[in-house]
Amino acid sequence: MTETRARYMDCSKSGNVAERMCELLGMECNVLTDIVFSFSGLATRGGGTGVHADGWGLALYDGPVARVFLEPAAAAYSPLATFIRQHPIKTLLAIAHVRRKTRGQMTLANTHPFVRELWGRHFVFAHNGTVKRLERLKLGRFKPAGRTDSEYAFCALLAALQHDFKERPSRAQLAQAVAAHSKRIGAEGTFNFLLGDGDQLYARCSTKLHYIVRKAPFKKATLCDDDVCVDFAEVTTPDDRVAVVATMPLTRDETWTAGEPNTMWVFRNGKLAKTLAS
Amino acid sequence: MTETRARYMDCSKSGNVAERMCELLGMECNVLTDIVFSFSGLATRGGGTGVHADGWGLALYDGPVARVFLEPAAAAYSPLATFIRQHPIKTLLAIAHVRRKTRGQMTLANTHPFVRELWGRHFVFAHNGTVKRLERLKLGRFKPAGRTDSEYAFCALLAALQHDFKERPSRAQLAQAVAAHSKRIGAEGTFNFLLGDGDQLYARCSTKLHYIVRKAPFKKATLCDDDVCVDFAEVTTPDDRVAVVATMPLTRDETWTAGEPNTMWVFRNGKLAKTLAS
Repeated sequence: MTETRARYMDCSKSGNVAERMCELLGMECNVLTDIVFSFSGLATRGGGTGVHADGWGLALYDGPVARVFLEPAAAAYSPLATFIRQHPIKTLLAIAHVRRKTRGQMTLANTHPFVRELWGRHFVFAHNGTVKRLERLKLGRFKPAGRTDSEYAFCALLAALQHDFKERPSRAQLAQAVAAHSKRIGAEGTFNFLLGDGDQLYARCSTKLHYIVRKAPFKKATLCDDDVCVDFAEVTTPDDRVAVVATMPLTRDETWTAGEPNTMWVFRNGKLAKTLAS
Repeated sequence: MTETRARYMDCSKSGNVAERMCELLGMECNVLTDIVFSFSGLATRGGGTGVHADGWGLALYDGPVARVFLEPAAAAYSPLATFIRQHPIKTLLAIAHVRRKTRGQMTLANTHPFVRELWGRHFVFAHNGTVKRLERLKLGRFKPAGRTDSEYAFCALLAALQHDFKERPSRAQLAQAVAAHSKRIGAEGTFNFLLGDGDQLYARCSTKLHYIVRKAPFKKATLCDDDVCVDFAEVTTPDDRVAVVATMPLTRDETWTAGEPNTMWVFRNGKLAKTLAS
């Protein structure tokens, strides 16, 4: 499946897009898919129509590891972000972030998503919000390289998972543990996040998160922030399923599901596999 | 300093460049420098004039962390490698690799350089050769994501460093420990490598490695594999120093120093800081 072949159509722009802030974007699919359509919407908000001009990142899994593109600069004016849109890489699982900094300088070390290896896999993490009272969190073997609360919270989450499981646990066990530790870590502050392990996408809603699953019958979709439409019926097969998670809906003519605060979605094979309290 | 502004000159090509295999490339400087000139030579060998068509990677440090570009495909024909040459990123420390596979499939997880976080910094590693009898090496907390002997040896090296030092040690202690553990790990097989920590570049010669330090008075240099010259006098200031390490010399009109087998160079601030037995 592709998200690439967007056709430019006569779509009138909607109102104040800067208010519809989007910082997180995740995609999880049952067939190799590029993320160009959704990433275009996100990149536009990264210093273009939005206020998230302090950095951007995109992680694309290939098996147990991810390649990660990071820039401590506005996505909207980034030649690298443009290159990625022009040379799409297909993946089953992607996590992207555009940053408006609350803590930490505009450096590479402070740019989401963050990556660490655990149990021989890359874990990729992007966060929206601010986690408070970090000193209550144990870090264990994972040390932050930058100065964000986000990376600190990510390291604390991985340390807790590593403490619970010496080897990689079952999917159900891992999801339960991620939900439980996230609840604890996010108890003070705002902890909306996307977490990937190359197998599942974990999406925690603390205050604001939305998802959609695109599947047959596919329809046309129009980005909120750009006059860009794509008719997914033209670029899909009937068995394709693509779950997309974003802080705010990226399209204006599809029905997105809003997350309940303090819940975590788990996506697998382009489906919402489960919703857990978190 | 820049390596970018290469002027095309009338340089006749030398003989069989495929024989002059180059897999490793490192650069360590006292002033922000882009690696375009040397990376162009390396990328040409990645499936162009050379036989290293199984993947390439480039890590560019920015403080304690590195951004890493990886592709399990030939560098010579890679749009991403071309993009990087056209949009140079300046850095004080870079490690690049083009791969001719000996073990492991052509996947992202098997593509050098490899990255792990230790003591809140990225360690970046690229290897030339084959390490044998991996089962004798202890892995500790770092698990390979791919199936190469290289990543396995890197994980074993980091596990040993982590075992020796709970916190980041002094530069001298770290260099000694890297040299000692590398000697042990590389005792069976061939273990030429480049290792970076955002502070120093460690370059171990098992069988074949060369370096040059470019400093005032700067001169013209011509890539072996391309008819590309750069006059560094035009693009430098008198205080600039750039150390470049490569499996084989990348230029044909400069004097490169060959490594002694079982030694390790440590570069810092664009200088050879020390040479250790390893």
